[in-house]
Amino acid sequence: MKLLTFLSDFGVKNSYVSQMKGVALSITDAKIVDISHEITPHNIREGAFVLMTAIPYFPTGTVHVAVVDPAVGSSRKGIVIATRSQIFVGPDNGLLVPAARSLGDFAVYEIENQKLTLGSVSNTFHGRDVFTPVAAHILNGILFEQIGPIIKDFIDLDFGNFEINDKTIIGKIIHIDGFGNIITNIDGFTLKKVLSFDKKIVLYIGKKKFEIPFVKSYNFVKPGGLLATINSSNFLEIAINQGDASKKLGVKPDDNIKILFS
Amino acid sequence: MKLLTFLSDFGVKNSYVSQMKGVALSITDAKIVDISHEITPHNIREGAFVLMTAIPYFPTGTVHVAVVDPAVGSSRKGIVIATRSQIFVGPDNGLLVPAARSLGDFAVYEIENQKLTLGSVSNTFHGRDVFTPVAAHILNGILFEQIGPIIKDFIDLDFGNFEINDKTIIGKIIHIDGFGNIITNIDGFTLKKVLSFDKKIVLYIGKKKFEIPFVKSYNFVKPGGLLATINSSNFLEIAINQGDASKKLGVKPDDNIKILFS
Amino acid sequence: MKLLTFLSDFGVKNSYVSQMKGVALSITDAKIVDISHEITPHNIREGAFVLMTAIPYFPTGTVHVAVVDPAVGSSRKGIVIATRSQIFVGPDNGLLVPAARSLGDFAVYEIENQKLTLGSVSNTFHGRDVFTPVAAHILNGILFEQIGPIIKDFIDLDFGNFEINDKTIIGKIIHIDGFGNIITNIDGFTLKKVLSFDKKIVLYIGKKKFEIPFVKSYNFVKPGGLLATINSSNFLEIAINQGDASKKLGVKPDDNIKILFS
Repeated sequence: MKLLTFLSDFGVKNSYVSQMKGVALSITDAKIVDISHEITPHNIREGAFVLMTAIPYFPTGTVHVAVVDPAVGSSRKGIVIATRSQIFVGPDNGLLVPAARSLGDFAVYEIENQKLTLGSVSNTFHGRDVFTPVAAHILNGILFEQIGPIIKDFIDLDFGNFEINDKTIIGKIIHIDGFGNIITNIDGFTLKKVLSFDKKIVLYIGKKKFEIPFVKSYNFVKPGGLLATINSSNFLEIAINQGDASKKLGVKPDDNIKILFS
Repeated sequence: MKLLTFLSDFGVKNSYVSQMKGVALSITDAKIVDISHEITPHNIREGAFVLMTAIPYFPTGTVHVAVVDPAVGSSRKGIVIATRSQIFVGPDNGLLVPAARSLGDFAVYEIENQKLTLGSVSNTFHGRDVFTPVAAHILNGILFEQIGPIIKDFIDLDFGNFEINDKTIIGKIIHIDGFGNIITNIDGFTLKKVLSFDKKIVLYIGKKKFEIPFVKSYNFVKPGGLLATINSSNFLEIAINQGDASKKLGVKPDDNIKILFS
Repeated sequence: MKLLTFLSDFGVKNSYVSQMKGVALSITDAKIVDISHEITPHNIREGAFVLMTAIPYFPTGTVHVAVVDPAVGSSRKGIVIATRSQIFVGPDNGLLVPAARSLGDFAVYEIENQKLTLGSVSNTFHGRDVFTPVAAHILNGILFEQIGPIIKDFIDLDFGNFEINDKTIIGKIIHIDGFGNIITNIDGFTLKKVLSFDKKIVLYIGKKKFEIPFVKSYNFVKPGGLLATINSSNFLEIAINQGDASKKLGVKPDDNIKILFS
C-alpha cells in the first residue's frame, strides 16, 4: 500500500490542498491522509509539532508532504528527509526535522532534479509544483540519489528547552488543541520519573498561580476542574475536564509555565 | 471493498484524527471516509444525531468509529455494536445507539480482548488506542466473539419525546447545521400523516410566535423567508430560504418548539 | 483509477458530505478527493472560481460533483458537463461552467434518467440523491447519452470583465483565500505582457490608495509589506508577505480595484 499524507497552513476554503492531491494522483495511485491544514498561517513550529505527534502511528514507507512555507519563492531549499521508516518532503525551514529526528537516524537530500517537479514551477506554491510531485515519484520507487545531493547544513528546529529537577519544572506552551487543552514542551517520560500521579502541584502560568492535581486522566477531577496530565503524545498537558483551559487561563503558544511540587 | 468511517469532536487543527487513520492503515487496507470531526466538544447527543443521519447511505459492511468521549480514562466501557448491515465502535455512552437502532436488531459487545488494542493504551485517547484498532481488526475479519462478551446493560440514548396530534406538534431542537437550519426531533413520516404541504402553521419558538408555511422545499418561499419543511433525513426543519434561521431566531439545541395548525 | 471529487457549501459539522460519499461508494469503488466544503453558503460564483482553480491539476477521467445549490427543489435542472478530459455534475446555475470552459469544448446534458438517481429523491438534497449517483454511474462507464438530452440553454456564468491597457488595470476581487490574500479576476498571462516584475504600481482599492511593488513572489518584500503578484492559478493577487491583506485593507469579494502604472 502506498500512503501519502499532507500537512499545511492552507485551510480548506480554497482549492490549494486539492490541487496538491490532483497532482499526486496524476503521478501515483496512493492512499491519501490529511494530517492538518489548519496550522496557524506561517507558524513553522506549530506545524513541526503537529507533524511530529502524528507520525508514530503511520506505517513504514509512508511519505509525508508538509508545507508551512513563508519563504516560498526565496532562495530557501526544498528537501527530502529519509529515515529508516518514513519519508518527509517540504521546505528547508525546520518543519520536517523534529518528526524525522523522532524516528532515529536520517539523511537530508536537497531537491535539485527538475525532472521530478512540475513542468512550470510557480513562485508561490512549491507544495503543489515541487514537494507533491517529488513525494509521488518517491512512492513510485525512485532512488533518493535521483533527488539531489545530501546536505548537512539544513535548517534545524526544536521546541525549546525544559527543565525538570526535584522540586521544579520549567517549560513553555507549544500548542493549543481543538479542546483548548494546553500542551507544553515538557516530556512525559522524564516527568514521570520525578512526579507521581495524584500529587498536588503548584502551577505558575502568566501572572497566575493555581494548585492543581497531576492525574492519569481528565476524569480524575470533576467536570470544570483544572488538572495536569500526560497527554496521548507524552507531553505534559494542562487541561480542564470537559472545558477549555486555554480560554480560562488566557494563554497562548510560547508562554512560559512553571510548576512547583514537593 | 473495506470501508471505515470516523466521527469525533476532535477538530482538525491537531493531529488526533490522522493518528487514528495511521493506526487503521497500519492494520488494514480500508477506504476511509470522515463523517464529521466538528461535533461540539463533549456533546454526545449531537454526535449521535450526526452519526445516525449519515449511516443510511453507507454500504453493508461499513465499520464506523465514533469518538465523543468525555469520560475517557474513567471506568466507562468500550463497545462494538453489530447490526445486520453495519458495525459501530466507540465508547459506551449512548453515542452509537441511535444509529445502530435505526438499522434494526443489534448486539452490543464489550471490548475486552487486549490483543485487539494497541500495545500501550493511553488514558486520554481510546479513539486511537482501542476503538480504531478494534475496528480495523473487524474489517480484517475477526469474529465478534473475539472482542468480548455481549452486554445488555449498555448506556442508551434518545433524542427526547415529540408529540403530534391533530392540532399541535411539540418537540425540541436537536441540531443546527452549517447553513443555520434548525433541525428538530420531530419525525417527518409521522408529521406528513397529519399535515399537508403548503398549509400555514403557527410556530412558537423561544418567546416568539411566527406564522410560516409548511413547504416541500426552501424555494417555495422567497429568499429571506422563514419556512418549515421536512429535511433530507426526514426530520421537521425550520429554515430561511438562503438565510440563517438559527441566527435570526436566536435558538440553540435543546430549545423547545411548538406548532399549531388547523 | 476512478477519481471522484466533491465541492460544496455544506461545511463539515453535519453529515451531508459523508452522505454523498456513502452513496458514491455504494455504487462505485472510486478514490475520493474533497476540493472544498467551505464555500460561502449559496455563493455560486465563489464555488465556480474554487472549482475552476482546482481542475487543471486533476487527471483525465476525473468526475467532479459540485453542489452550491440555492435553488434546490425548484425547477432548476441538474446537468452533466462533459469535456474532452474531465466531467462535471451539479446544478444548472453556472457553477460548473467556468471550470468546464477552461478545458476547451464541452457538451451539457440534462439529467433526466431516473434510473441513475436514488429511488427516493428529496426536495432539499440533490447533491446526495441525484448528482452523486449520476457521477458514480459515469465512473462505472455509462454513456453520456443515457443521462438525458444535450441542452444548449444552460445557465452561463463568468467572473466579470477586466481591462488592461498601457497605463491602467481595472478589475474586481473574486475570492479571499485562507491567508487573507486578495485574488482578482485579472488574468496573469495578459498582465505580464504589459507590466514587468519589480515595477512600482499605484493601487486604488476601496477609497484608499497605495504605492506597492509588483513582484514575482511574497518574499521580494519584507514581512508585513503589501505587494501585487501573479498567483499560482495565474490571477493578479494583492497580498501581504506573511500577513492578512484582506483584513488590513477591509475588502471583500465583488469590490473593485484599479491599478495605475507607467
